[in-house]
Amino acid sequence: MTLSTRQTDEIASERGQSNATRRVVAPLLEEILFQAMPVLDHGFVRVVDYMGDDGAVVQAARVSYGRGTKKVREDQGLINYLMRHRHSTPFEMCEIKYHVKLPIFVARQWIRHRTANVNEISARYSILDNEFYLPEPQHLAAQSEENRQGRGDVLDAAQGQRVLDLLRDDSLRAYSRYQEFLNQDDEGNELDAERSGLARELARMSLSLNFYTQWYWKIDLFNLMHFLSLRADAHAQFEIRVYAEAMIETLRRWVPLTYNAFEAYRIGAVTLSGPQLKVVRALLGGELPTQESSGLSKREWAELMTALGR
Amino acid sequence: MTLSTRQTDEIASERGQSNATRRVVAPLLEEILFQAMPVLDHGFVRVVDYMGDDGAVVQAARVSYGRGTKKVREDQGLINYLMRHRHSTPFEMCEIKYHVKLPIFVARQWIRHRTANVNEISARYSILDNEFYLPEPQHLAAQSEENRQGRGDVLDAAQGQRVLDLLRDDSLRAYSRYQEFLNQDDEGNELDAERSGLARELARMSLSLNFYTQWYWKIDLFNLMHFLSLRADAHAQFEIRVYAEAMIETLRRWVPLTYNAFEAYRIGAVTLSGPQLKVVRALLGGELPTQESSGLSKREWAELMTALGR
Amino acid sequence: MTLSTRQTDEIASERGQSNATRRVVAPLLEEILFQAMPVLDHGFVRVVDYMGDDGAVVQAARVSYGRGTKKVREDQGLINYLMRHRHSTPFEMCEIKYHVKLPIFVARQWIRHRTANVNEISARYSILDNEFYLPEPQHLAAQSEENRQGRGDVLDAAQGQRVLDLLRDDSLRAYSRYQEFLNQDDEGNELDAERSGLARELARMSLSLNFYTQWYWKIDLFNLMHFLSLRADAHAQFEIRVYAEAMIETLRRWVPLTYNAFEAYRIGAVTLSGPQLKVVRALLGGELPTQESSGLSKREWAELMTALGR
Amino acid sequence: MTLSTRQTDEIASERGQSNATRRVVAPLLEEILFQAMPVLDHGFVRVVDYMGDDGAVVQAARVSYGRGTKKVREDQGLINYLMRHRHSTPFEMCEIKYHVKLPIFVARQWIRHRTANVNEISARYSILDNEFYLPEPQHLAAQSEENRQGRGDVLDAAQGQRVLDLLRDDSLRAYSRYQEFLNQDDEGNELDAERSGLARELARMSLSLNFYTQWYWKIDLFNLMHFLSLRADAHAQFEIRVYAEAMIETLRRWVPLTYNAFEAYRIGAVTLSGPQLKVVRALLGGELPTQESSGLSKREWAELMTALGR
Repeated sequence: MTLSTRQTDEIASERGQSNATRRVVAPLLEEILFQAMPVLDHGFVRVVDYMGDDGAVVQAARVSYGRGTKKVREDQGLINYLMRHRHSTPFEMCEIKYHVKLPIFVARQWIRHRTANVNEISARYSILDNEFYLPEPQHLAAQSEENRQGRGDVLDAAQGQRVLDLLRDDSLRAYSRYQEFLNQDDEGNELDAERSGLARELARMSLSLNFYTQWYWKIDLFNLMHFLSLRADAHAQFEIRVYAEAMIETLRRWVPLTYNAFEAYRIGAVTLSGPQLKVVRALLGGELPTQESSGLSKREWAELMTALGR
Repeated sequence: MTLSTRQTDEIASERGQSNATRRVVAPLLEEILFQAMPVLDHGFVRVVDYMGDDGAVVQAARVSYGRGTKKVREDQGLINYLMRHRHSTPFEMCEIKYHVKLPIFVARQWIRHRTANVNEISARYSILDNEFYLPEPQHLAAQSEENRQGRGDVLDAAQGQRVLDLLRDDSLRAYSRYQEFLNQDDEGNELDAERSGLARELARMSLSLNFYTQWYWKIDLFNLMHFLSLRADAHAQFEIRVYAEAMIETLRRWVPLTYNAFEAYRIGAVTLSGPQLKVVRALLGGELPTQESSGLSKREWAELMTALGR
Repeated sequence: MTLSTRQTDEIASERGQSNATRRVVAPLLEEILFQAMPVLDHGFVRVVDYMGDDGAVVQAARVSYGRGTKKVREDQGLINYLMRHRHSTPFEMCEIKYHVKLPIFVARQWIRHRTANVNEISARYSILDNEFYLPEPQHLAAQSEENRQGRGDVLDAAQGQRVLDLLRDDSLRAYSRYQEFLNQDDEGNELDAERSGLARELARMSLSLNFYTQWYWKIDLFNLMHFLSLRADAHAQFEIRVYAEAMIETLRRWVPLTYNAFEAYRIGAVTLSGPQLKVVRALLGGELPTQESSGLSKREWAELMTALGR
Repeated sequence: MTLSTRQTDEIASERGQSNATRRVVAPLLEEILFQAMPVLDHGFVRVVDYMGDDGAVVQAARVSYGRGTKKVREDQGLINYLMRHRHSTPFEMCEIKYHVKLPIFVARQWIRHRTANVNEISARYSILDNEFYLPEPQHLAAQSEENRQGRGDVLDAAQGQRVLDLLRDDSLRAYSRYQEFLNQDDEGNELDAERSGLARELARMSLSLNFYTQWYWKIDLFNLMHFLSLRADAHAQFEIRVYAEAMIETLRRWVPLTYNAFEAYRIGAVTLSGPQLKVVRALLGGELPTQESSGLSKREWAELMTALGR
């Protein structure tokens, strides 16, 4: 990740301010507020605002108990309980806002989560920067044989290098064409006084899906955890997973008790279907059910055995 | 509004804290943060958290302009433009959280706005307080003759007093019955050792719709303004309008520039249909269209004449 | 449930129509379309429109495979897979619309699900009917001792009868007062020519929470299943559970394959946390972990033992 | 638009079915159900399912009036009223589902509307077709001088031709590279037995933003009209506007009364701010306010004068 001087200055200025507030504060998150956490070759994610903390979750959960509650549960226990029973509304009382720089094909996956607020740079108004994603060689993998959506073996060094060279050449050419269409160079000067620049909203068509875009993205804590549990999952594409992983670190700093519960009851959790549960009970009863006898599909059986560490 | 000692202490403690933050702060809103603004006889609304300010709206709007923007618009002008053209996403970057105490029949109207997060006291767990809404005599009005959903003339003093007396008696009786069903008095002691208390989730059925409930309610700035424009409107029921009016004051303190634009382009605005606009053009051209010649319905014609101050 | 003659006629007329359409049709659901399924003493739920079927789910899931897919999975297997992996979007392609009559306190729980579209009878415009919920004696239970939100033992016959008598008397009185405030009798005639009727929006305050309301409620298949899994759960209040149970029958008729998957992977499913899974693995390995040694809370341990049938 | 033989057959088969249903039917929409309406050079939009009609809107609006309503308003009048006063919930009772083929850069604008359900072809699983958007020469315009987001003059013939030639060459080259990365030709055969194909989720990065994608897109009538009013607007990019225009035709066939109201009260409507309304009143009173005296910005003044036809 390379930040421009303008961006570095802006971040320094944002981080330099200290204001007095009556609101609750998340001290560990304040430490890294506005800081850009590098992701991929040119991307980043940074927290630019937040509202609420673990206490806000607990307070919202307790409003349901009011006067009638005599014994106050311990906060971690209560948050664990809410997480386990998928009580969503107390977690919705907290909100966080990120500034993210990410390749367009990643943005296209990300935007499917509709429960967030988004303001993205518009290439109808703005000219995108000459920044595009090139994978590290160890992430250039062949199509998986077993899994229709996954990656298989990493390409050998020569093949990988060839892909990278082609991708870099193509991307540079695409950006040149973009500038040619716009009739404008890096400094914003006209390239050719005899021509008109094509409208920005059309010129952008020449860019490929690995070019970077940016957005502000704001979401509540419940929906953030839903997003993270899907996108930090092993089935998610590597290029979005690395963003989710960086954001899990911000979760830990923001709401440490909720983070603990998230790790135990979401990331580490497994849902067993009725038929799968029956197999577990049989196994515990000393029986030896097989995939055939269980009525489970091969895939379900395999998923169960993995979960049970067999 | 009467706050319990416990509530007064809690508010004092919340207001007493001062934390350092790198986040933006809304100074006028900080002044009244956590303070209960009285509404109706026992209700209140108070801001308990917020995120963002006018600057966050402007920043989100400008992300669309990026490098390509040379001349920076003045903030108020930009916010006016966003409001006028109903650009929603920049306003969604700000969030606010209220604690509200309100009669159940008001809560039933309020909850129709689905774009907010809510945590309400549950009468399955908690025992509701003996607090119910009794209107001021000047708000006891007859059914409107013209408007199917509105109020007409205020009841005369004697009739009004009678309604209030009956409503108070009924409400007190309802609460007595509630306690009888629960088999519990104000101090939480058993009323009759020979009986079991009815489950709370059933006992609550005896309460009437004027009893008070409470909730935390969190919403983004765009949807808040939508809520306020509908609920501060003259067609809204008085008992919800007074909440909206108190909340408009919090809007003014939170985001003063957005508040200005809201007043000019939402509250004071009028939408003219194509046919209505044609009438305005005709009038400006010196013609004298009539309701009949215009093709407008009587109601549309009347709405237009009101808007034009005729 | 008693339907008025007007309602019975309306349903007969709706059921009498037969139109030709190019759309997909769910034959089992067509059989009961518009029919009122009785719930509680005066309530009902009926399907009044729908869109899509199991095939629409499968089609949406397969759009992701397009040309690249050679082997077509069997539909039930695909739907099971989607359900197991919580893929939501294919299920969102189907939509259903209900007409529901339900007590106000049930409506207040129901409306918390914000992902549906609702049109409720407004008591600002309309006069509610003299219909209120009285539980069956076997559903009149005491507050649970163990579970803060549940019911415990059923009241003995004498106590139960007393509660019912009081509840009936109070409800009748409340409706009388409502009519007195409105100054209107059952036939809509003025009660007292000397008085004005109180505005409807105010008069309704005298009604208690067991009075019935009605609404149209429209939701997509994914969110419907989420609603049903929460509201058909043993922890849900009996009075909403019976609605969910009636609606599960409509699910079975509408999308039979999705219903099968719903039963196996939602209703019958259990989610094990990371720490709970560790206990299962230990048990399968022949160890004998205890609650203390496991690090689980008592509640979590109990939930796990129940799931394992121990 | 060219449909493959497989698609043409599929559409014929879908259109060939005729089922009996008790549901309401929209006859004019049934006529074109499943038919692909061509948009741009390779795109289309087609209605593949729907639920409800004008009658469902009216019914939902009237549920609020119930027994209390004596005089039944005429349907068109009621729908006009709902549209004028922005009553959203009755329109939410209808739902429609489209199948759309569109360039990726158009899809990126479209997806910002979050109130719809979407299932898009995934290029992680599937291989995209060799279809990309090339504008008609008359739509190749320069960047607008006045409007930061718009298009200005059309490029002269030579410049336009040059842009098209380059865009075609680049797009063809991008698709070649895509196949090279996948190591697969048009028939799905391996190109080079010595190489592995790059994973699909990576290979797609080489495609440019004018390539076509496809999705199912489902939305309720209220949110559809919101989408259409924004995207059929003169400020919307031409390439999305043409989709909106085709969809307005489906609106007319689906809900003719709602369509009439939409044309009069949305498309043809103008919202005047408080200050703008003051100018109109002054003009009607014979005064001659100027931009300076009015307090309006130049832009607001110009917008007002345009609305008034001056």
